[in-house]
Amino acid sequence: MTDFDDAIALTSAADGTYRGSLSDEWSIGEAVNGGLLMALSTVAVVDAVPEHHAHPLTWSGVFLSPAVPGEVTVAPTVLRTGRTMSTAEVIVRQGDSERFRALVTMGDVSSHAEPVRKHSPMPTFPDVEHCVSASEAPPSALTKSGLLQRFDMRLDPATVGWALGDPSGMGEIRGWIRFADGREPDPLSLLTFLDAFPPVAFDLGSVGWVPTIEFTGYVRAVPAAGWLAIRLRTSTVTGNLLEEDAEVWDSTGRLVAQSRQLASARFAA
Amino acid sequence: MTDFDDAIALTSAADGTYRGSLSDEWSIGEAVNGGLLMALSTVAVVDAVPEHHAHPLTWSGVFLSPAVPGEVTVAPTVLRTGRTMSTAEVIVRQGDSERFRALVTMGDVSSHAEPVRKHSPMPTFPDVEHCVSASEAPPSALTKSGLLQRFDMRLDPATVGWALGDPSGMGEIRGWIRFADGREPDPLSLLTFLDAFPPVAFDLGSVGWVPTIEFTGYVRAVPAAGWLAIRLRTSTVTGNLLEEDAEVWDSTGRLVAQSRQLASARFAA
Repeated sequence: MTDFDDAIALTSAADGTYRGSLSDEWSIGEAVNGGLLMALSTVAVVDAVPEHHAHPLTWSGVFLSPAVPGEVTVAPTVLRTGRTMSTAEVIVRQGDSERFRALVTMGDVSSHAEPVRKHSPMPTFPDVEHCVSASEAPPSALTKSGLLQRFDMRLDPATVGWALGDPSGMGEIRGWIRFADGREPDPLSLLTFLDAFPPVAFDLGSVGWVPTIEFTGYVRAVPAAGWLAIRLRTSTVTGNLLEEDAEVWDSTGRLVAQSRQLASARFAA
Repeated sequence: MTDFDDAIALTSAADGTYRGSLSDEWSIGEAVNGGLLMALSTVAVVDAVPEHHAHPLTWSGVFLSPAVPGEVTVAPTVLRTGRTMSTAEVIVRQGDSERFRALVTMGDVSSHAEPVRKHSPMPTFPDVEHCVSASEAPPSALTKSGLLQRFDMRLDPATVGWALGDPSGMGEIRGWIRFADGREPDPLSLLTFLDAFPPVAFDLGSVGWVPTIEFTGYVRAVPAAGWLAIRLRTSTVTGNLLEEDAEVWDSTGRLVAQSRQLASARFAA
């Protein structure tokens, strides 16, 4: 078992729900990473839908309270099963507290991958060896997290000034990512990679926790083995709200996943 | 009452659900417009949450079966009420058939609108008088719809070639829109405007119906009175799937709403 597969493992209960266990190895601050929870919840959905609908195509969820290390219950409900797609709702609870709820469309992503009629090109930025490892980041509450040790994450030097107190102000963070233990990416783990990078709000000078209000991710292709490239951007930041758009390309340069989240950030000024 | 307010009017039932009536005045082909349903369902959510959380901030839904003219039942469930936001689920049914289900974050959008720290600028394109009215479009299944008569819609001549069989291939449609009866835009109706334009897939040569699989919209500011500008774009089209991104600016040039949907299109070649 890899770290990731161990973290998202579920056992089924007689009532149609599933049990998992959240570890602080996937925490950042006090909370367990939302991207891990998105993948873990989808494992229950995979089990509930037909076998040939095993990939998340769309995943939209609201985060209702922070998840903490400990037992978790996952309850999927299939809403519709069609020829090429199934739609489900999934609810994640700890005790009586609902952590999040999502609406998920499942299918076979490889059957929707060809031909490529239009394609978001991968941006040009330094290769892995010339990017800055997150493990070189200065000590802070953020870097003292289990989560960051689960990934090998390398950030474009042009978009890492915020870690030194000098955000670019562009509203963009680029870099490379893979699992630290070498597990290769797949459609399920793309949900986790979409939410693994530092929040793009940091590049605009936000401080502290950036909670996700709503998150929607799309998986567009089965990723090839190797490093993934990620670009986070935001176009509109008003008051303490911003949308964060993520794009993920695989090692062949193919766009494999997209997401947008609305998040709440605190700005120093 | 305006056309729109009449179409989204609901009456509450003793069991906590709401009843509405769908008219073919908001249909396109056989189906009632998804954007109208999004606003109508949110009316029930507005009634279920605290009065000061009356605006949709995020709206994410899955479309399970096409809605048809006739009676509709709307069932909201409040999942969480916080100080500045409430979160709810809403289900729309006709008879025993679930039409769609959505997760909605409600709040006071004006309390998140200032300061504007970063902002997606409105694109430059011809003014209303130099755009092409949808009422001038050649007769087709698409234009013989009640829906198009509810709006005054003017498309940028540079992005309307598809209506004459000559799509630009850019994957972009721009234009102006307002309600035909002069009703001014508000946060609720922005949900409808986000899904009112012809699908961007037409600009890439798709033919026929473009069903929405998943739709997520964000309302970012209370719109000023007057015309709205809309830009639809897509970056990645593979197989028969594409994401469609919409942005809406009000008459002051302020970005007031954003959305993304994953849709399924048929391409001639």
